[in-house]
Amino acid sequence: MKAIGIGIAGVGTVGSGVVQALTEHASLLETRSGAPLRIVKVAVRSRPRVDVPPDVITHDVMELARDPRVDIVVELIGGTDTARELVLAALENGKHVVTANKALLAMHGREIYAAAAARRLDLGFEASVCGAIPILRSIREGLIGNAVTSIAGIVNGTSNYILSQMSDGGRPYDDVLAEAQAAGYAEADPTLDVDGSDAAHKLQILASVAFRGFVPFESVHVEGIAGIDPRDIAFARDLGCRIKLLAIARVEDGELELRVHPTLIPESHPLASVNGVQNAVHVVGDFSGPLVFSGLGAGQRPTASSVVADIVEIAHNLVFLRPSRVSLLPTAPIDSIAGVRPIGRIRTRYYLRVMALDQPGVLAAVSGVLAANGVSIASMIQKGRAMDTAVPIVMVTHTATEAAVRRALTEIDALDQIAAPSVCLRVEGLPD
Amino acid sequence: MKAIGIGIAGVGTVGSGVVQALTEHASLLETRSGAPLRIVKVAVRSRPRVDVPPDVITHDVMELARDPRVDIVVELIGGTDTARELVLAALENGKHVVTANKALLAMHGREIYAAAAARRLDLGFEASVCGAIPILRSIREGLIGNAVTSIAGIVNGTSNYILSQMSDGGRPYDDVLAEAQAAGYAEADPTLDVDGSDAAHKLQILASVAFRGFVPFESVHVEGIAGIDPRDIAFARDLGCRIKLLAIARVEDGELELRVHPTLIPESHPLASVNGVQNAVHVVGDFSGPLVFSGLGAGQRPTASSVVADIVEIAHNLVFLRPSRVSLLPTAPIDSIAGVRPIGRIRTRYYLRVMALDQPGVLAAVSGVLAANGVSIASMIQKGRAMDTAVPIVMVTHTATEAAVRRALTEIDALDQIAAPSVCLRVEGLPD
Repeated sequence: MKAIGIGIAGVGTVGSGVVQALTEHASLLETRSGAPLRIVKVAVRSRPRVDVPPDVITHDVMELARDPRVDIVVELIGGTDTARELVLAALENGKHVVTANKALLAMHGREIYAAAAARRLDLGFEASVCGAIPILRSIREGLIGNAVTSIAGIVNGTSNYILSQMSDGGRPYDDVLAEAQAAGYAEADPTLDVDGSDAAHKLQILASVAFRGFVPFESVHVEGIAGIDPRDIAFARDLGCRIKLLAIARVEDGELELRVHPTLIPESHPLASVNGVQNAVHVVGDFSGPLVFSGLGAGQRPTASSVVADIVEIAHNLVFLRPSRVSLLPTAPIDSIAGVRPIGRIRTRYYLRVMALDQPGVLAAVSGVLAANGVSIASMIQKGRAMDTAVPIVMVTHTATEAAVRRALTEIDALDQIAAPSVCLRVEGLPD
Repeated sequence: MKAIGIGIAGVGTVGSGVVQALTEHASLLETRSGAPLRIVKVAVRSRPRVDVPPDVITHDVMELARDPRVDIVVELIGGTDTARELVLAALENGKHVVTANKALLAMHGREIYAAAAARRLDLGFEASVCGAIPILRSIREGLIGNAVTSIAGIVNGTSNYILSQMSDGGRPYDDVLAEAQAAGYAEADPTLDVDGSDAAHKLQILASVAFRGFVPFESVHVEGIAGIDPRDIAFARDLGCRIKLLAIARVEDGELELRVHPTLIPESHPLASVNGVQNAVHVVGDFSGPLVFSGLGAGQRPTASSVVADIVEIAHNLVFLRPSRVSLLPTAPIDSIAGVRPIGRIRTRYYLRVMALDQPGVLAAVSGVLAANGVSIASMIQKGRAMDTAVPIVMVTHTATEAAVRRALTEIDALDQIAAPSVCLRVEGLPD
């Protein structure tokens, strides 16, 4: 049986894991693919982090797209410029592509999916979302008989690690972040992780696959965890909740909500106990009901597991001469959805923390503003008393529209008795 | 585009769900399959539980295997005689098959997989294990780049419901079973569920898919939950554990352990919080690390979700003229495994409850027997004192072989001071 030629662009953390898997499991993968998988070219900037024969190394990444021995280009260089150029050139030259690059797909997915579909080439991107968890396969193929109604995921391990540590130790954000950086759980520049961008990239891909059509990345509402105060984590616990950075895609009245933000969920919610660097995705289909998928969302071997699954699927297709499942690529807009709902029009419950001077009438004033805006309070905690300084008034609302809550907060924060900007977090999964 | 002809055998609970899905989602499924899916024949004993056109109804189930308009036979009649005959005849006549019949595959899988593989026909059986959870797809395709090292699953909703209720209410087995029957969570004859057979059928299928080869059903060691005493559930809680009916497949030193039995697992274990009729499977791959899949393991719509996923996959293959993934059917024995390890040679930790008369020297006698058999005690609880009646001595051992523990218990139960047969349950997931 003719070997399948693999070209790998980028041999850093994930690339080394892929080389290891292809080497350690050569015989197992040959059995399962129907042909040997051979690494025929490896493109690196300086030198690979793992042993590869010197004659397969190149420093010109575009060589992967040109080399006739390469059947499958595995793009693991990251970034969105050279990666895009490489993937499009590879497809142009009739090569199948596997990528773990979530930013690339979130930004340029439509162009890339269309290029693959036009040439009937396979494009595997399981590793772009949630590391080892086969979440895209499960949704795309396992739930193919369902109309998916909602997805809620913990999809950024760094943010989840930081929130878990803040929750366990009651420590401030900056301390925990510094510790996470020292432990290797956060990058030296953690911006993309903590500002929600990375989660938003993954949500864009999850939503495109689940709702079977391309959603523009710009339509995702994104808030990160950098503003989270340990006091709110403690108040959430008093309310029987945890704060998690959730990536949510949900159909409401024919519109799609797409949002990433810190969220209170009740302790009993299946995502509440997902701690540390774990990832988990809660998916609801109209026939399947709720499903939860959890596992390691990052790391060398877990991510390699998903990259290799895509390589083997393509190799198997090549051996058995099957055209790809390109008809399942999310190339078109979602036809069953009227559009993406602006964040102001979402309806959910809210956690509010208002910092008020402890003066007579302040509660009446705050609750009056909420009532006037149609926001009704389900529960309230007022902790501590102080003559001169502000005390927190913590409230959980009944279901309300985002715009009404925002309007109310603007009015509340303008009151004389309010000492600092109010905190507002969304609450999900708590029955109203 | 020519329609794909579907023949459905059996329109009870699951069959009705499948008809509903094919009807409600006709347009969505046509888009995703690439062709309309048309129900051309339905075989029922008396009358279908859901509306189908009268002209498609037959009372001769074998007609599905003969009707030239049927491309895919969906076997939902259950049992292992007629079902086997139907499936083999359908394959013989060149039809693809989807089945939800775990007993059929556990008993006759090897013959059926071989028949499908020989004719290069697709055989879908996602719905045979864990209802809506796409667990077979996830393991077979999502983890294809891994050597799976262990599977532990809560795969029987009835048993899990009964154990959850016993655990919550401290009530005896018989009461909870009667209540579960009244609530429709247990069959009038619950034998297959509570004696572990149903879980063993599913484990046989899971292991065959995960270890990529057929394992004989007879090699699964099976114990059910009928003997579980509420006292042991309470003692387990004192030890920070829950008792769950686990289906375990694990590679140890090149041998495969295959066992279904009530098991203590620590509260922190991801399966400990899976309650009621939920199913969940914990899978470890050598690259992926641990993954957990959970969802509804039974029921009309959840099971239909998985049946329809298989139908759509086959339809998609038919439309795009792809041969099936038959090379992935577990037709051969597992070549990487030396054999199935007899239960006596497994090594794990054990929970023991010995009913001893409260006399001087009894503890010394019991612990002496354990020590003489090489079984070492990690922790012990003795609750209550009584002059005349027996009191429970509860112990958790360090890791030991099953045979040594069984030998020790035989000797202990023969001691004069022992008033009743000892209880022995295995403990998993508790670090030694």
